[in-house]
Amino acid sequence: MYAPADVSEERAAVLATAAPWASDTASAAPASLVSAVLEEYGAITRRALLPHLEHGEPRRYLYGPAGDYPRRSGRMLRSSLLIASARAFGADLESALNTAVALELIHNAFLVHDDVEDEGLERRGRPTLNVLHGTPIAVNAGDALAILSLRPLLDNRITLGPRVALRLLEEVERTVRESIEGQALELGWRNDNAIGLRDEDYLRLVLRKTCSYTTIFPVRAGALIGTRDGLDLDVLTRFGFFLGAAFQIQDDLLNLVGDHARYGKELDGDIWEGKRSLMMIRLFQCATPAELEQLAEALRPSRAGRTAEQVAWIRERMLAYDCFEYARQVAHGLAGAAQHEFERCFAQLPDTRDKRFLADLARWVLARD
Amino acid sequence: MYAPADVSEERAAVLATAAPWASDTASAAPASLVSAVLEEYGAITRRALLPHLEHGEPRRYLYGPAGDYPRRSGRMLRSSLLIASARAFGADLESALNTAVALELIHNAFLVHDDVEDEGLERRGRPTLNVLHGTPIAVNAGDALAILSLRPLLDNRITLGPRVALRLLEEVERTVRESIEGQALELGWRNDNAIGLRDEDYLRLVLRKTCSYTTIFPVRAGALIGTRDGLDLDVLTRFGFFLGAAFQIQDDLLNLVGDHARYGKELDGDIWEGKRSLMMIRLFQCATPAELEQLAEALRPSRAGRTAEQVAWIRERMLAYDCFEYARQVAHGLAGAAQHEFERCFAQLPDTRDKRFLADLARWVLARD
Repeated sequence: MYAPADVSEERAAVLATAAPWASDTASAAPASLVSAVLEEYGAITRRALLPHLEHGEPRRYLYGPAGDYPRRSGRMLRSSLLIASARAFGADLESALNTAVALELIHNAFLVHDDVEDEGLERRGRPTLNVLHGTPIAVNAGDALAILSLRPLLDNRITLGPRVALRLLEEVERTVRESIEGQALELGWRNDNAIGLRDEDYLRLVLRKTCSYTTIFPVRAGALIGTRDGLDLDVLTRFGFFLGAAFQIQDDLLNLVGDHARYGKELDGDIWEGKRSLMMIRLFQCATPAELEQLAEALRPSRAGRTAEQVAWIRERMLAYDCFEYARQVAHGLAGAAQHEFERCFAQLPDTRDKRFLADLARWVLARD
Repeated sequence: MYAPADVSEERAAVLATAAPWASDTASAAPASLVSAVLEEYGAITRRALLPHLEHGEPRRYLYGPAGDYPRRSGRMLRSSLLIASARAFGADLESALNTAVALELIHNAFLVHDDVEDEGLERRGRPTLNVLHGTPIAVNAGDALAILSLRPLLDNRITLGPRVALRLLEEVERTVRESIEGQALELGWRNDNAIGLRDEDYLRLVLRKTCSYTTIFPVRAGALIGTRDGLDLDVLTRFGFFLGAAFQIQDDLLNLVGDHARYGKELDGDIWEGKRSLMMIRLFQCATPAELEQLAEALRPSRAGRTAEQVAWIRERMLAYDCFEYARQVAHGLAGAAQHEFERCFAQLPDTRDKRFLADLARWVLARD
């Protein structure tokens, strides 16, 4: 595992830094730089990615479905973060591109299998692959996306040499494994209908399931490419963790209070799925014993067994107990901690646009809502 | 793609060699050497494999289920074939073991996802993971098995050096991708309720779905390890293809005419699943138009929509048209072609126990029923 093993200690540090910093988030400046870089690096990555999905056979039952999510408009946060980290550490864009492509393929593989496992209905504004093609073809398409990520990673031996290529594969192996472990934790919570969870459990989950591949890997891999494996990558892990956790909480908030057209997933989908978001866990903590019993009842069946009344009631209870506001505050605290870690890790690097992009990300994460 | 692109031409060659050779299969000698080697190499591989699954967390919802199939008694054909090929080409066992472990992990990952996609009920004499734990946990456990295969493949950089390790990863990438493409072909046939298939379609399917990782990869990877990437591996592909296709046809025959206790899957499971086995395709070719219509009707719904009467009727029609005997003959022809290719590829190698194991495999495949 990565450095922040004792999540409860991190949590205290986060809340301590939250208040003074959070008030500063109204500034519009970071959004424009971050958006510009996401658009630029995202477009370059997508251009390099799509050929991996365009020429394979069979088309209709494999490469067509496998190429569907990557062609839908995604944020391309992960690949952009990786490229910016590599460039901030002195690499050129070209040398980071294979790994950026691989990361987006892995991300899409996760999305496809997550949607199967959660019986998700919408993804990036359209029906999920499992809805469009059924479970068998969706599972197989996810497998294709995962193995396709290996090709650009092997191409790294040409651009980066065999030693760095193999080091990156080691990072990928650990990252993907941890994400799958995180997914298993979450599936276990749902299977057990867990209602005794605490904030620390949530943070431990997102560390593995989300942060590992969304933020920690991109920053570490970028530094590895930029320094040609010349840096102790563990110093970067906390920045990635704080940033990724803030991002995930904000993403879950958008699911419940966001604008459907911009969010691209069904609103309240997380409640329908019985997801243990930070808001849900806060509700577990605030609820009366009678409410907790009613909650357990409502969350016990699988998605299809929940009623619209139950979903509306859970949402209303979250509002009544200020669960959204609470989650917003934790996200702000985490973003502030990410900012703090950023200064510590990247202070020595020259002042470039990529460094400023990394510096602005924490505030951009919060500004999304 | 590998060498045998024009499968129909191969098919003619196979049938031409079938007759004289097939009569020689009653000999009991090969079975004992093959069984002994499978037992020996299988045990060594399993001992090296299980630690990858024993220490991970979470246990109950990930590493427990992921370790289930590998702990059930499998034949360990793939790993044994790889080790024997490596040793026949001059390597020691130790240098092939990481790749053998990776291959068994990949094989088990395929089994888990195949069972999800086929709604399979039994595997190696026990309920499938999807039956035991549901689809979400089974899909995630399959993902874990797949990524766990990367670790021993990366360990190859210590035992074999970075260049050979990366070459093996290239072989793995192509192999896994082709298997997934084969699986997509098969899912497509079921989705389209295809009934106009021919023997060539079947051979093209098993080339990708089965042979690529069951026989072609083990022989190629073994030679790569044994010669330290000093051989044009394509000369070995036809041996792997013929052997793997004979193996798959025989396996499908055992599903329909075998002994349940030894086979470990539900008998007639392939008919329940609507699988386009060679026997099913032969039935398509022999059936009257009225029967073909009835067949299409029976195969149209998913597994749950088929009746025991329909399954029994399909089985009875297969018997009436000698479809089992036909498939047996094709398997014999393929095994004969494998034997022929073996002489061509391995004649120059010293006479070792591993070479004799490889020589005996084709007859062993047929003797299994």
